[in-house]
Amino acid sequence: MSDEVFAAVVANTAVRAETDDAALIQALLRTESALTRAQAKAGLVSGAAAVAVERACAMEIDLDALVRDTSRGGNPVIPLVEQIRSRVGDNVADDVHRGATSQDILDTAIMLMTQRSLDVVLGDVERVIEALGNIEVGDFQMTARTLMQKALPISFDDKIAVWQSAADDIRQRLENVRDNLPIQLGGPVGNGSSLGGSYKEIRGSFAAQLGLVDARCWHTVRLPIADLAAALAATCGVVAKISGDIILLAQTEVGEVSESGEDSLPGGQRGGSSSMAHKSNPIAAISARASARRAPFLAAHLFAQMEQEHERAAGAWHAEWSVLVDLLRATGSAGNWLAESLERLVIDTDAMEKNL
Amino acid sequence: MSDEVFAAVVANTAVRAETDDAALIQALLRTESALTRAQAKAGLVSGAAAVAVERACAMEIDLDALVRDTSRGGNPVIPLVEQIRSRVGDNVADDVHRGATSQDILDTAIMLMTQRSLDVVLGDVERVIEALGNIEVGDFQMTARTLMQKALPISFDDKIAVWQSAADDIRQRLENVRDNLPIQLGGPVGNGSSLGGSYKEIRGSFAAQLGLVDARCWHTVRLPIADLAAALAATCGVVAKISGDIILLAQTEVGEVSESGEDSLPGGQRGGSSSMAHKSNPIAAISARASARRAPFLAAHLFAQMEQEHERAAGAWHAEWSVLVDLLRATGSAGNWLAESLERLVIDTDAMEKNL
Amino acid sequence: MSDEVFAAVVANTAVRAETDDAALIQALLRTESALTRAQAKAGLVSGAAAVAVERACAMEIDLDALVRDTSRGGNPVIPLVEQIRSRVGDNVADDVHRGATSQDILDTAIMLMTQRSLDVVLGDVERVIEALGNIEVGDFQMTARTLMQKALPISFDDKIAVWQSAADDIRQRLENVRDNLPIQLGGPVGNGSSLGGSYKEIRGSFAAQLGLVDARCWHTVRLPIADLAAALAATCGVVAKISGDIILLAQTEVGEVSESGEDSLPGGQRGGSSSMAHKSNPIAAISARASARRAPFLAAHLFAQMEQEHERAAGAWHAEWSVLVDLLRATGSAGNWLAESLERLVIDTDAMEKNL
Amino acid sequence: MSDEVFAAVVANTAVRAETDDAALIQALLRTESALTRAQAKAGLVSGAAAVAVERACAMEIDLDALVRDTSRGGNPVIPLVEQIRSRVGDNVADDVHRGATSQDILDTAIMLMTQRSLDVVLGDVERVIEALGNIEVGDFQMTARTLMQKALPISFDDKIAVWQSAADDIRQRLENVRDNLPIQLGGPVGNGSSLGGSYKEIRGSFAAQLGLVDARCWHTVRLPIADLAAALAATCGVVAKISGDIILLAQTEVGEVSESGEDSLPGGQRGGSSSMAHKSNPIAAISARASARRAPFLAAHLFAQMEQEHERAAGAWHAEWSVLVDLLRATGSAGNWLAESLERLVIDTDAMEKNL
Repeated sequence: MSDEVFAAVVANTAVRAETDDAALIQALLRTESALTRAQAKAGLVSGAAAVAVERACAMEIDLDALVRDTSRGGNPVIPLVEQIRSRVGDNVADDVHRGATSQDILDTAIMLMTQRSLDVVLGDVERVIEALGNIEVGDFQMTARTLMQKALPISFDDKIAVWQSAADDIRQRLENVRDNLPIQLGGPVGNGSSLGGSYKEIRGSFAAQLGLVDARCWHTVRLPIADLAAALAATCGVVAKISGDIILLAQTEVGEVSESGEDSLPGGQRGGSSSMAHKSNPIAAISARASARRAPFLAAHLFAQMEQEHERAAGAWHAEWSVLVDLLRATGSAGNWLAESLERLVIDTDAMEKNL
Repeated sequence: MSDEVFAAVVANTAVRAETDDAALIQALLRTESALTRAQAKAGLVSGAAAVAVERACAMEIDLDALVRDTSRGGNPVIPLVEQIRSRVGDNVADDVHRGATSQDILDTAIMLMTQRSLDVVLGDVERVIEALGNIEVGDFQMTARTLMQKALPISFDDKIAVWQSAADDIRQRLENVRDNLPIQLGGPVGNGSSLGGSYKEIRGSFAAQLGLVDARCWHTVRLPIADLAAALAATCGVVAKISGDIILLAQTEVGEVSESGEDSLPGGQRGGSSSMAHKSNPIAAISARASARRAPFLAAHLFAQMEQEHERAAGAWHAEWSVLVDLLRATGSAGNWLAESLERLVIDTDAMEKNL
Repeated sequence: MSDEVFAAVVANTAVRAETDDAALIQALLRTESALTRAQAKAGLVSGAAAVAVERACAMEIDLDALVRDTSRGGNPVIPLVEQIRSRVGDNVADDVHRGATSQDILDTAIMLMTQRSLDVVLGDVERVIEALGNIEVGDFQMTARTLMQKALPISFDDKIAVWQSAADDIRQRLENVRDNLPIQLGGPVGNGSSLGGSYKEIRGSFAAQLGLVDARCWHTVRLPIADLAAALAATCGVVAKISGDIILLAQTEVGEVSESGEDSLPGGQRGGSSSMAHKSNPIAAISARASARRAPFLAAHLFAQMEQEHERAAGAWHAEWSVLVDLLRATGSAGNWLAESLERLVIDTDAMEKNL
Repeated sequence: MSDEVFAAVVANTAVRAETDDAALIQALLRTESALTRAQAKAGLVSGAAAVAVERACAMEIDLDALVRDTSRGGNPVIPLVEQIRSRVGDNVADDVHRGATSQDILDTAIMLMTQRSLDVVLGDVERVIEALGNIEVGDFQMTARTLMQKALPISFDDKIAVWQSAADDIRQRLENVRDNLPIQLGGPVGNGSSLGGSYKEIRGSFAAQLGLVDARCWHTVRLPIADLAAALAATCGVVAKISGDIILLAQTEVGEVSESGEDSLPGGQRGGSSSMAHKSNPIAAISARASARRAPFLAAHLFAQMEQEHERAAGAWHAEWSVLVDLLRATGSAGNWLAESLERLVIDTDAMEKNL
């Protein structure tokens, strides 16, 4: 079963590979392994056990079985732990997932996938900033437009500077979120008691291994998800603003910018039409906008799921998983397309002058 | 690239197979073929051309090439038409996609996928209704609860009757939408002029072949999408209500219902915990609720994309595709899980009496 | 405390007067009175009691006390019933609100306010249809635009016909919803038992008096709200589409339409700027769009609140009230502004020809 | 026209008085006055002019005229400036609103209203933190509940600590946003050129007078609104989590907490029912939840409006105003109700023990 066709337009990003089943399973395995290692460091399990778990986590997982069993317990960690346990000797089995709950492992793994996804997104924001820096603004004048009516002249540099400052601000928000992605570790009821007297030590070591931030258990206080949703939605808002401006400037009657159709990628001409050969659509900006448009609704979904019951939610947690992935992908796609649009942007300063 | 793991919980439905790449391509090919056939009936192209197109549409499509080229023009129809044309003789190539625009083909294909998806959803609503009918309500009394406080006694039959009437009402809304799914056919600028004097005849024949309803072109008037979004969101709202009640009734302190863990499906016990062996979670109801929770946000996305520019939108149309698919899947998953929950529901009338 | 300033732009509609405190209280009183009258017809209370309640419901309500006490019980019906009871003799007091629950009265009253609000909205949709009919389309040609690029010529009539059909379709959806607005009457736990053996008779008579449709109790099955949300969001979607087109056509560089600034309303010139005297903004279309933009989010809120617990929800019901009012107002404002924009629309066929 | 009744439940907060028409007009006047003063400091207008504007801004505004004229130009600043100008001598009229655009004044005024509103919200968060600190947790044990099933024992202190840390985290986010609220000052086309060579100096002085942060013009880069939306939605998410837990713990069958009905406020018993005298509903927690439920949708609306065209948006800006006000009020109401619920919370440790 594949969903590549629509993704080619609205999820056109390397974030997909950082968030698919293979990436999820790797992140889950890395998390289980780090947990046992942290407990070994704290002297709760033997070093040999940690090595055994690490090896088991390096083996191939039976994906079909995992998928089939995931729905039975309502999350993928239960069958994954079974598969890991079946690969270590009986004497080590109890050291797998010791003291943890499914949510510890899955939330942490999602943070790991998020971390890599944010690196992709930040890479695209860098491309945007660089492409903006490469635009020759000269000392051209253009018309400003307020409420879609010609207002007064501005410099082309004014226009680009607004886009640049928006991209800079977004980079800062995304870096801030990326640098604060927390582990999740609370045990079955969130208070860490199942992890014993070394709970805080284990947490610190677990976080350090994974490159995440140590944090109190947030099983049902979903502020890290909210912060992430906010930064991604803000990013998409900025992409929508800039790509929207490009689309408006590229209107035939305005004609101040276009996306170059000649490019070095295979397949030749971009932005064609199935019925009108003369057309050249700014398809990168259009795809950027289409991708970005998902964010407000996906973010709202995540904010709404903050109402999580007691010590583990009955549905609101499960409702987060795919949506966070979709939001990462939408943002990745938005950023990637905007970078491409700007990299291929052709400026028509004659049109700017004519429209003044 | 696969996304099966999270889907096992929140997109656990046969709708996935009706909306994946294979289904999309089949629907697109069926649509192109029906279009040429309709034009042959109207005498605009030869019968031989229609046969040639039909045969070409029965051949295997190169999915990798299609995905790669989809992003170049911003939709999958442009490269698909190229693949079809390359398979018919040069003299027939012009009869492929004649007079149509990409949006005609893609919107129609999406309606075909929707039709099959709604059949799946309606099948699950039938299962819900049947499972409710199979619950032995006897003349048991239970407590009504208002604002989560015990109120006055009602009969168990009262409770079930409310759920039943909700399911009945949903069935009617879904059937109504399914029976009114329209074709899309307007040509490049939506007025049908590219289809010539037989435009209305072609439309009628095109619709009849596909089992869809003839309709004026709705390229940028997205009421069919809005109607669909509304019916699916309403369905999910009802699923969320019933599954929410089940979750509340299954609370340990209430204990009036549970989901049977013994079932005929492979894999044995359901609803287990990775850390607490004594627990039995109503995981089908929880997954139903988690699936249903997506609907308000996906429907809102679709309503917001109704603001489509001129004769074809620059982004808002593209932003619909995946979201409609996600909404169909979320609804399918919600209905499927609720049916399973109700089919496995165990009633504890002693607890009902004790709670009175 | 007043909120008139922002409302002048984004809630500029007679719906406000149909949904404010005075309208709410009138609707609540009308509902209580109709209930007692229906019970009198069924012989459950005396005709004299019905008259006494009717008279009490015609008296002035102490709004300050009502507001103060509303928050104490979490809804306005509890203190309203107290005020009514204090005005009828002790022997009639028990006949006020007999067998009813707060939600019966408030939901029914909201349906009454909705009915009047929909009449306002439908009146504006009529204005839109009429204004579209008054536009002289001649046999002018204009350019169609797809993905914001010039495509092929269409007739001006094609453009207007698309807007007209959208408005027609919306009228039908709104009428359908208006003609099916239900009463709410179920008693404290929703099964009507508190209303005795004449429950169905009372319901029919209650509905007939109020001009609403008889219906099963829908305390926690919120399909009538969902249907309403869907019709209003679809209406706003159509308004956003048409007003968006107007805004795009009115761009200085396109110039095919403008909103006449000379009008018969007091205050002279519209669409001016605080800083640029030469500008003429299509402020009616802009305000229509701004108003319409609220709908997807308000509708989503209502869909999300369908998850209502047991026999009366602990919060989801309360969360509907203001939002439904806001959605009615947003739709009213959107329709009113679009009608004004179209009534004042000036067509520049020279620009159309030039842009071809 | 008043909307007090529903507000008594879902907008029950002092934020209303900080965001109504009177507050808006005061904030607008304060902004205009500060602008002239800043220009006087920079030597662009005379000190006498600044005094004259300040005096004019202290006079009574004709609200009816302002409301009537607001819709004509699509914002309240145009008529407000006219009223101010009519009060200063002709020689000063040009110094009113000099170099500014409506959006400068309105955005800045909204930030001023937001600042006061956030102070109210932060005050309620303090009350929440204090109330949580006042709860006697002793060394009581209670059952943890995961997926709404009894899990393992936790201490009551564990439960309260989770709520406390959530409230602490929210306070930090709100303070951060409050301390970074920016001025808006860019002139008609956003580049400050209308404010002359002293643009940056004027901006600094304008910000200092108003207690806001100096910032680049953000006319169509709405990150300050996005940051605000995020912090408010996160706050509401935390309120929904805690109030949801209270509602669940207050269920009759659980009975571990209740809201005291005896309180010092006028009107006696809270949480009563219009039909069932024995009931005691946790109406403060219910109202907190109902208020908080608005936030995801209002925040999403604001995120979606980030797509603002060119140098001033044609609708998306206008669509922000009321929604930001609603979001501030919803958050205020949520915080206020949660504080009240916690201040009145009665703990039943016997029930906790029984449920273990």
